[in-house]
Amino acid sequence: MEITKEELILEVLRQEKPDFHDFSTTELADFLNDYDEYSNVIIEILEPHRAVKTLKFLDLRVQKKLIHTLPSNIVATLIQNMHFDDRTALLSELTSESVKKLVLFLSPEDRIETLALLGYPEDSVGRLMNPDYIEVKDYFTIQDALNKIRKLGRTIENINFIYIIDDSERLIDDINLKELLIASPETRLSELMDKKYIALNVTDTQESASSVFRKNNRAVLPVVDHDGILLGIVTIDDILRVQSEEDTEDIQKIGGTEALDEPYMNTAFFELMKKRAPWLVILFLGEMLTATAMSFFQDEISKAVILALFIPLIISSGGNSGSQASTLIIRAMALGEITFADWWRVMRREIFSGLVLGTILGSIGFLRIVIWSSVSPIYGEHYILVALTVAITLVGVVLWGSLCGSMLPLLLKRIGADPAASSAPFVATLVDVTGLIIYFVVASLLLSGTLL
Amino acid sequence: MEITKEELILEVLRQEKPDFHDFSTTELADFLNDYDEYSNVIIEILEPHRAVKTLKFLDLRVQKKLIHTLPSNIVATLIQNMHFDDRTALLSELTSESVKKLVLFLSPEDRIETLALLGYPEDSVGRLMNPDYIEVKDYFTIQDALNKIRKLGRTIENINFIYIIDDSERLIDDINLKELLIASPETRLSELMDKKYIALNVTDTQESASSVFRKNNRAVLPVVDHDGILLGIVTIDDILRVQSEEDTEDIQKIGGTEALDEPYMNTAFFELMKKRAPWLVILFLGEMLTATAMSFFQDEISKAVILALFIPLIISSGGNSGSQASTLIIRAMALGEITFADWWRVMRREIFSGLVLGTILGSIGFLRIVIWSSVSPIYGEHYILVALTVAITLVGVVLWGSLCGSMLPLLLKRIGADPAASSAPFVATLVDVTGLIIYFVVASLLLSGTLL
Repeated sequence: MEITKEELILEVLRQEKPDFHDFSTTELADFLNDYDEYSNVIIEILEPHRAVKTLKFLDLRVQKKLIHTLPSNIVATLIQNMHFDDRTALLSELTSESVKKLVLFLSPEDRIETLALLGYPEDSVGRLMNPDYIEVKDYFTIQDALNKIRKLGRTIENINFIYIIDDSERLIDDINLKELLIASPETRLSELMDKKYIALNVTDTQESASSVFRKNNRAVLPVVDHDGILLGIVTIDDILRVQSEEDTEDIQKIGGTEALDEPYMNTAFFELMKKRAPWLVILFLGEMLTATAMSFFQDEISKAVILALFIPLIISSGGNSGSQASTLIIRAMALGEITFADWWRVMRREIFSGLVLGTILGSIGFLRIVIWSSVSPIYGEHYILVALTVAITLVGVVLWGSLCGSMLPLLLKRIGADPAASSAPFVATLVDVTGLIIYFVVASLLLSGTLL
Repeated sequence: MEITKEELILEVLRQEKPDFHDFSTTELADFLNDYDEYSNVIIEILEPHRAVKTLKFLDLRVQKKLIHTLPSNIVATLIQNMHFDDRTALLSELTSESVKKLVLFLSPEDRIETLALLGYPEDSVGRLMNPDYIEVKDYFTIQDALNKIRKLGRTIENINFIYIIDDSERLIDDINLKELLIASPETRLSELMDKKYIALNVTDTQESASSVFRKNNRAVLPVVDHDGILLGIVTIDDILRVQSEEDTEDIQKIGGTEALDEPYMNTAFFELMKKRAPWLVILFLGEMLTATAMSFFQDEISKAVILALFIPLIISSGGNSGSQASTLIIRAMALGEITFADWWRVMRREIFSGLVLGTILGSIGFLRIVIWSSVSPIYGEHYILVALTVAITLVGVVLWGSLCGSMLPLLLKRIGADPAASSAPFVATLVDVTGLIIYFVVASLLLSGTLL
């Protein structure tokens, strides 16, 4: 039988002098994410650089636990050794009190930088910045630049690009390391410069940064402030993580939940309820209006109970078409394909869509009732009128659903709210109430004198 | 008044000898995505390397149009000059007939490689591979490696890593360019080797590759076949694009639409209907069962019309809780946080969630009816029983909704289908039908002898 890595690690832990050299930091982290009771023991045994690497791969939950329970001298070493962006990610998850305590461990220089980073809004590029880049002047020769890389390279994660700054620290160009290797060593950097570069602004949103990365096929981009002064770099691995988190948030909101802060399985039960109950309650209160709306039509229902049979069919069709429209528009907005300025083009499209889709459903509904009536007396003698009422209502609610679903995300964005909050359930609730009114108004018009 | 880039480009186009040196390729591409009627003119004017860069930033729609309408000698130059992965992305979107015609333009070497790439399944790592990497032998000195980089560097996008292969072309290690720059030039690569590297398998899914990139913080990874032979590299910008596309698909499916192949605004109207109508019709046919279910309870409704008032409230609460559960589980599965093996933990969680959430909604519903009854006679003398019926039903449907919503994605995955197909509307439809049955069964039990 094969022995798993987990069993091997547990085996090592039972030895008198545990030694984890045979395991990679990823393996150790995978293990600790499942067996966090051993995290203190293992992290204390590892050499600092391996401990930091392991820490980096741990779930944030285990990271936080470690930081709170490890002896402070060890925490200090870990935090000092962490990469800048990982450190900021960890710190921004801790309460501000723990942060204050922790930054005391940092060297004065690191502390200033960390606090500066934390001053940027949570979804800004500033929070992803990493000061581990190499800056040079345009009068450097390639040899000077290579010497600087040799000197600083050990501590720097990514040296695909070096950055040229002027005397006031403004970014004036980026140079691909490849170009340095190809040209002769005595060439001055100014000869290689084309003054064309792409930079992010420190206050840009992470979402917009993600689209700059996608559009330009880059693995790392420099970050400048509003004066053009070079502050740091952002690497694409952080962007990949951010994009995945944003998409998770959007999906959860579309499903009618507040976005979870941690993975579903790691979210405490009470926390999960706190994220789900409020939206369910809001939707429930909204949906109560359906009972109110229907109470106005109680007479009609008692005269023609047949009308009640189609209520779920009608309101759900409105809800489904609304849900289609809203998710399409929310996603297109998140990808920057649609902005508020496109509202009229979207509306025109959705009016046509709603009419076509409504006509399809209306026709199926009409045929269903008419055909059924030829074999069963359930829909009474006025079945043609009932079928017509259902069909016309379906066109109306599907059109209305498509319109609401497409316009709500645009409106929310316009007033500065998150478009994803116009979730499928939210649109459905809105459409349910109005759908009922459409149904009973159409019924009154068509059936008065016969059924009503 | 400020003149926009678009106007400037249109201005240049009107000149006798248009010259686009003042515009970046991104600016030109942005322009052409909106004014594709000028794409042939502009692409023909640009020098090949700028034309390729512009082509790369164009929407696939415009790219395809260009490839079909440009003179074949220009197409040949463009395709020859494209980066391998971009070329594969473009070719895999064309019909196989156009592909065959196009690969004729490639040099024999390129052609073989392109066809080999196209042999891999559409969502495999093979489709993202890029053969532009540098491979070396372990007996090379650093100087040898640097010389090879100098020679080949010009044509290669990313040289953060070079790869060491053995005599049978098997990958045996990767070396960071940084290490080459730091050590002395006469060092042999074998001395720098630690034989630790991360590689993707060519048949891995792109989804799993994305998680390897995220986990290991890498910008580029080598790809090997099942014998360990080095075939190419995958760069993280392609992974970022793939991840964004996969998330878009999931979101669209969650909203109850087939995933669109192109951005919402670029999708032809008929195409949009083809993606939306089938699901709406399927849901509509499913929802027809509600009319059938209700026809069994027609007697109850005519005896107690009051019951009909709460139908939308009850079925939508079931649908909303199902939608919450299904989106949470679908996303957690997409991120690899939950697999089928977790079904029992998920089920236990959702049973508790359903009971708690159902009790909250049930209590609100109960209070609403009781309080309203103290000011209005609308719910009749037996309002306490009506309130109790609604409350108990709500606990039942919310529990049932949470269970269906959470178990369906797991089941779909188990049978090899896409979990995201268990969209919010799909779950809602399922829960609507059963919710009605729960409602009328509870009502028969509680109200028989009084209202019924």
